[in-house]
Amino acid sequence: MKLEHIGIAVKSLETSDNLFERLLGKKSYKNETVEREGVTTSFYETGQSKIELLEANTAESAISKFIEKKGEGIHHLAFGVDNILDEIERLKKEGFQFISEEPKEGADNKLVVFLHPKSTNGVLVELCQEKQ
Amino acid sequence: MKLEHIGIAVKSLETSDNLFERLLGKKSYKNETVEREGVTTSFYETGQSKIELLEANTAESAISKFIEKKGEGIHHLAFGVDNILDEIERLKKEGFQFISEEPKEGADNKLVVFLHPKSTNGVLVELCQEKQ
Repeated sequence: MKLEHIGIAVKSLETSDNLFERLLGKKSYKNETVEREGVTTSFYETGQSKIELLEANTAESAISKFIEKKGEGIHHLAFGVDNILDEIERLKKEGFQFISEEPKEGADNKLVVFLHPKSTNGVLVELCQEKQ
Repeated sequence: MKLEHIGIAVKSLETSDNLFERLLGKKSYKNETVEREGVTTSFYETGQSKIELLEANTAESAISKFIEKKGEGIHHLAFGVDNILDEIERLKKEGFQFISEEPKEGADNKLVVFLHPKSTNGVLVELCQEKQ
């Protein structure tokens, strides 16, 4: 498993893109809206692992709820896997719980699933696989 | 700037090493105690970026306080830089605030400083430079 990206929940992409561009000394290389998740994302290259800023587009988005409860900050860690279905099976056998076991289309041409943070030390862990 | 590692605060390295070994399908490659910070760390290779688990050894450790306030979970993001003093100067000019501007010895043969999360979207950002 390789760390593919880190998702950071932000209130405003306009404000936070400005902040992360100054912090990282580089520009966001991609913006993408994921309608099904109610988020717009902005990606930064930081070595092999990316930073993904996430702004909510709807009050029902998981990102809205996260910010309401915890404020802005790190939302999830995503690990890249070659075969997401095999990896779900392996982790279920290891006793990990998933928020949903059905991979869904995420940003950046990926299939994604999330493990429940209760089974992963309070860390929301995403598995992602490049779509064929 | 490359993402060097992600620090995760845990209550017990024994419990969490077991969890992360099963999650990542690999063993921790290094344990190290940083007396000055009151922590013991455990490292995992996950591509170019590492996972660093942090267990507090004292009640005064920043990790004890973090867990008391927020529970277990992601504690900081660390970016590797070639020259930490130049990078501190650059970021100060950009208006970022530091918890302390003086680099200190961290785990893994590094000099480290932390930016204040108030100036970085609620994310505790570490800069680290390999010691010469």
